[in-house]
Parts: sequence; structure tokens; C-alpha cells
Amino acid sequence: MPAPVEFYFDFSSPYGYLAACCIDERMAAVGREVSWRPFLLGAVYKIVGGQPLVDIPMKGDYARHDMVRSARRNGVPLTWPRPFPFMSVAAVRAFYWLEQQSPKEATQLAKEIFRRAFAEGQDMSGASTVVGVASDLGLDKDGLAAALQDPSVKDLARAKVDAAIGAGVFGSPYFIVDGESFWGHDRISDVEEWVRVGGW
Amino acid sequence: MPAPVEFYFDFSSPYGYLAACCIDERMAAVGREVSWRPFLLGAVYKIVGGQPLVDIPMKGDYARHDMVRSARRNGVPLTWPRPFPFMSVAAVRAFYWLEQQSPKEATQLAKEIFRRAFAEGQDMSGASTVVGVASDLGLDKDGLAAALQDPSVKDLARAKVDAAIGAGVFGSPYFIVDGESFWGHDRISDVEEWVRVGGW
Repeated sequence: MPAPVEFYFDFSSPYGYLAACCIDERMAAVGREVSWRPFLLGAVYKIVGGQPLVDIPMKGDYARHDMVRSARRNGVPLTWPRPFPFMSVAAVRAFYWLEQQSPKEATQLAKEIFRRAFAEGQDMSGASTVVGVASDLGLDKDGLAAALQDPSVKDLARAKVDAAIGAGVFGSPYFIVDGESFWGHDRISDVEEWVRVGGW
Repeated sequence: MPAPVEFYFDFSSPYGYLAACCIDERMAAVGREVSWRPFLLGAVYKIVGGQPLVDIPMKGDYARHDMVRSARRNGVPLTWPRPFPFMSVAAVRAFYWLEQQSPKEATQLAKEIFRRAFAEGQDMSGASTVVGVASDLGLDKDGLAAALQDPSVKDLARAKVDAAIGAGVFGSPYFIVDGESFWGHDRISDVEEWVRVGGW
């Protein structure tokens, strides 16, 4: 069984959302599983500089337009969350806590957070909001509510974000397949091709 | 006759080179001509901030690797010019001076400058080097040598670069087709699709 494709993303990233909408299906079609790896772009910016894409002069205007256009092309709904970008640290902590028990449930939670944020425009920044999503999905909401107050879960999430940055991840989405890195939702076809032919 | 696709690029941009290697043929295949529009990324950085891609922490390492990998995938030779990035202001001035007489010859010059820079790794920054390319191509080298000393040609080039930035161009390559903008050599398929179906 080959290693899964590592799918790194920030919950507040529209291009991450676009990738999240299709990555499992597209990788399944080429016979690979996907390991979902949320991280925090803000942590990257703290270390190496940078700022949210949509705040960069010129590029920000282009990006806002391209995000909407890309969603339309992919047949995916896109509503801007308010605020945007939003703080997704609670979502990241929830994900990695849940993943310890069930990676499948963690991915389920991640997909629903993305859907509410970018298909419905909801503010997904609060811990109680994330617990609400878990509750709606029939997951262990009481366990999650406690976990989000637990310093060891904060440490766990921090370690996962540090590991992502250590692996070279600087943008969202970012994919690592068999040690090869690809940045951007518009490179998923490259990831597919790399899986299919084993490099070029 | 529909308007040509505007192809903006910096001569020192590897991704610009990759686009230059295929853009005329790919657009011809969908029935569009291409208007080559060199500009200077350095002028963008002066106005809105930014720095050469390969100098950005993390992203720079990724970009160097991806440029080589993308060239290999496209079947295009890639040799790093020394120095890199290089100053391409003489090439830009030469292009726009020559374009006034013959857009076809200007494009011919641009392709050869790109080829020598990125297929052969030559330093293409000097005015005399650019004149040498024109000479080898059988173009008006004496006229060009004089033009590169002419303040009005400097003004012409500056106006073209300013016009690119005014049109929103912030990266290389950058395409504008029927008022719609696309950034990146990995978006040429989007440009093709936009031409074919008139938007989405």
C-alpha cells in the first residue's frame, strides 16, 4: 500500500477549500488515500514573513477574482466568510484531537468546517462553533469541548503545525506525494500525474 | 478578428520562459494571436513591495525545484543563467523599439533572448549582448545600438512597463484575454479554455 498523499491546508484558505472539495475523489481515482494535514498560514508568516494573499497589493485583487472564478469553474459554491481571513486555530486543534481517535471523523469534521465557512459564509473561528459542528455530525462534542481547553491538545496542534513548516509547507493547499511537493489547487493534476507515472 | 492574447513576462523569469516556449503555438491552436508584452518585475516590486520569487524563504526553494521540474515536464531545456535573476531593462527597451517597426521581429528577438538565457545559461543583461542577438538574427543592429542610447526609447519602455502595471500585471507570466487576467504558466490551459468557450 503506497503512502497517502499529504494534503496541507489552512481552514481559512479559499484555494484550500477548493482542493478539499475534490482531493479525496481525485486521489481515489488514481488509487491513493489522502492524509489531511491542517496547519496555520499565520505561523508561516511569523517565521518567514508574508501576509494573507488577499491583502497583498495587486495580487490580492487578482486572487479574490480568481478564487470566485476558480470555484465557478469547479462547480463549487463560494461565499466569503465574515470575517475573512478567519482564525482557524480551534479547528486545527479539534482536527488533531479527533484524528487520534479516528482520522476518518477528523476529515469529516474538516470537510464540514470548510463547507460552512465557504459554501455558507459562516464564521468558523470560535471554539464553541467548532464544537457545534462536531455535535451536528454526531461526534463526541463533550470530549471535544474539554479537549479544546486542554494544554496538551494545544501542544499537539502546535507540533503538527511545526511539522508542516518543517516539511517545507508555506502555502495552502500544499501536497506532498512520495516526497515530492506541489503548491496550489491548480497543481492537483500534477499530483495525479505524479501518482500515475511515478515522476517525470 | 478577435483581439490577441496579451502575454506579459519578465525576461529574467523562468516561468515566463516556459510560457514563451509554447504560448504562440498553444494560442494558434485555439485561433488566437499573441501580443508579447515584456515588463520589469523590479518595477512592480518598487511600487507594491515584493522580491524575486527565488529569494523568498521556503517559497524560493520550492520555486527553484518546481521550475526545473516544470521545464522537464514540458520537455524544455533549462539552464540557470548567471547571474540570476538578471537585469533585463536593455532587452525590454530593445523589444519595444523593434516592435515599432516589426512586432514579428520583436517577438523573434524576445524568443532568442529567452533561449540564450534559459536554454544556454548566458547572461543577457547587457545592452551590447542584446545588440549581438539582434545582429545574429540579421536584424538592424546599428539602429538598435543607437536606440538603446536614446532617451526617447527609455521613455517608451518605461511607458510600456507602467501600462502593464496599470493593467494589473504583477507577476510573470501574466495573460490578459478579452479583459480577463490569468497569472502563471500553469494557467495557460485556463487561457485556452477561456478563448474556446468565452468564459465560464
